[in-house]
Amino acid sequence: MSGRVLVTGAAGFVGRHAVPALRARGFEVHGVGRSASPGADWHAADLLVPDERRALIAKIRPSHLLHLAWDAEPGRYWTSARNLDWVAASLDLAQAFAAAGGRRFVGAGTCAEYEWGAARFDEATTPCRPATLYGAAKDGTRRILEAYAATNGLGLAWGRLFYLYGPGERPGRLVPDAIRALSTRTPFPTTAGHQRRDFLHVADAAEALAALVASDVTGPVNIGSGEAIPVRELLDALAVRIGGAEHLDFGARPLNPAEPAVIEAGTHILTGVVGFRPRYDLVRGLDDTVAWWRAQGSAPD
Amino acid sequence: MSGRVLVTGAAGFVGRHAVPALRARGFEVHGVGRSASPGADWHAADLLVPDERRALIAKIRPSHLLHLAWDAEPGRYWTSARNLDWVAASLDLAQAFAAAGGRRFVGAGTCAEYEWGAARFDEATTPCRPATLYGAAKDGTRRILEAYAATNGLGLAWGRLFYLYGPGERPGRLVPDAIRALSTRTPFPTTAGHQRRDFLHVADAAEALAALVASDVTGPVNIGSGEAIPVRELLDALAVRIGGAEHLDFGARPLNPAEPAVIEAGTHILTGVVGFRPRYDLVRGLDDTVAWWRAQGSAPD
Repeated sequence: MSGRVLVTGAAGFVGRHAVPALRARGFEVHGVGRSASPGADWHAADLLVPDERRALIAKIRPSHLLHLAWDAEPGRYWTSARNLDWVAASLDLAQAFAAAGGRRFVGAGTCAEYEWGAARFDEATTPCRPATLYGAAKDGTRRILEAYAATNGLGLAWGRLFYLYGPGERPGRLVPDAIRALSTRTPFPTTAGHQRRDFLHVADAAEALAALVASDVTGPVNIGSGEAIPVRELLDALAVRIGGAEHLDFGARPLNPAEPAVIEAGTHILTGVVGFRPRYDLVRGLDDTVAWWRAQGSAPD
Repeated sequence: MSGRVLVTGAAGFVGRHAVPALRARGFEVHGVGRSASPGADWHAADLLVPDERRALIAKIRPSHLLHLAWDAEPGRYWTSARNLDWVAASLDLAQAFAAAGGRRFVGAGTCAEYEWGAARFDEATTPCRPATLYGAAKDGTRRILEAYAATNGLGLAWGRLFYLYGPGERPGRLVPDAIRALSTRTPFPTTAGHQRRDFLHVADAAEALAALVASDVTGPVNIGSGEAIPVRELLDALAVRIGGAEHLDFGARPLNPAEPAVIEAGTHILTGVVGFRPRYDLVRGLDDTVAWWRAQGSAPD
């Protein structure tokens, strides 16, 4: 695969893994984000500033764009008005990209675009009726970009990310917070954990996105493991590795009533059309994650 | 009704009629647009320039916003990339409005948000799957703003306009072009005209929007007559008034295969909940439109 790809959010949780995955596929990889990312030609730009994002595209003239940047501040991003700013920035980025000769745009979507309640989310049949501002902003962006791409000859794919975990995840999210509590033997009040979620190792998610960038597949593509497990099972599996199981206080917090019982990715497009296979199952994925935190020399904080 | 309403696109086809309709309901009316509009306090600002739109909102601090401005250049707006710029401007306008204490946002939607093919478009049951970039941009904007409004306590209504006609419509559109051709006895090549469309006099559409602004109704509301007629019937009715029927060349142009057989508004929310009744039926509406063009002293050009 030849091509010059710009990765937005290249220094983020997914981006750091996407850069080497794209390089391994033969792409010339350029990155933009808050901080430098190893393996990418680095560009400093604030994508929320119109002049900066346009100058960046004009300078690099990428043939492919992997657009990961978005507001992802834990606890805030579901309802933040910054979602609207990222919609605007993404639409403008796509225009600048197409104007500079860009051919293929791959955006980062989310399982939160779907109407929660289906047993398993299927790209073709599950309705998109997001329950959150974050989900609505991603869903709306995709709808508009699909129509824009159709009238401009742009290839557009949309990788819908489910629940990711792995090295480098930021504190404030389930897995790093649980690892920290278990490692420091600190109480971890949590829900009963019966809700089932589809967890995928972040390196696999990044590899799937790289495969999607390199493919000709268009439209939404779920990026998940294809098998949801109870959140309790994930936390118990961490405690097996770290100890401190007695600090997991299941049921101490209520499950938000808006949270569905199951969020699971249908993966027939990802596996059957894109041709992706994950490297990590949950056992290897959690081993890798716990080992990474240990190698940092301290628990996540 | 007391309140201070800002009308964007106040000098446009719908806006010129919306300003007096809002004044009649007791609103203090401010307008922004390309040119001055009688009856409104006038403000010059380019809404596509972030600093200008934010300064406008900060200066006026409207309690209500009727957002009509959008790219509407005939023949171009269905596919123009400017649609993306108007999405971004609209999202930012809503944020600035909410930040300045705004309470109620009424946006101009379109029948092109619906999946074309249903016999009659119903707000609650007809799927929104736009066939065009224009439709997708309006649909996406509405979806995002609905989620934003839900998380910010903003009242959001969305008036979906169907086919409007009447005084001041710009050349390049069906009714003024047909009036010009008939008036000047010039050939008017057109489709066979069997497709049925829901036509509403622009003053009624503006009155419906004013009623929607003054109401507490939220969500999408179709703004149409509720009865679609064959396009041929409309053109024949113009020829009855103007003469020149022999210049209507029905069937000279193919109907775009993407154009559906019927576009008709279900109006039970507009009539039953908002409580709106149109003043013009088609006979009076076309009389009024032809009389207006005659009073201009010349045919539309």
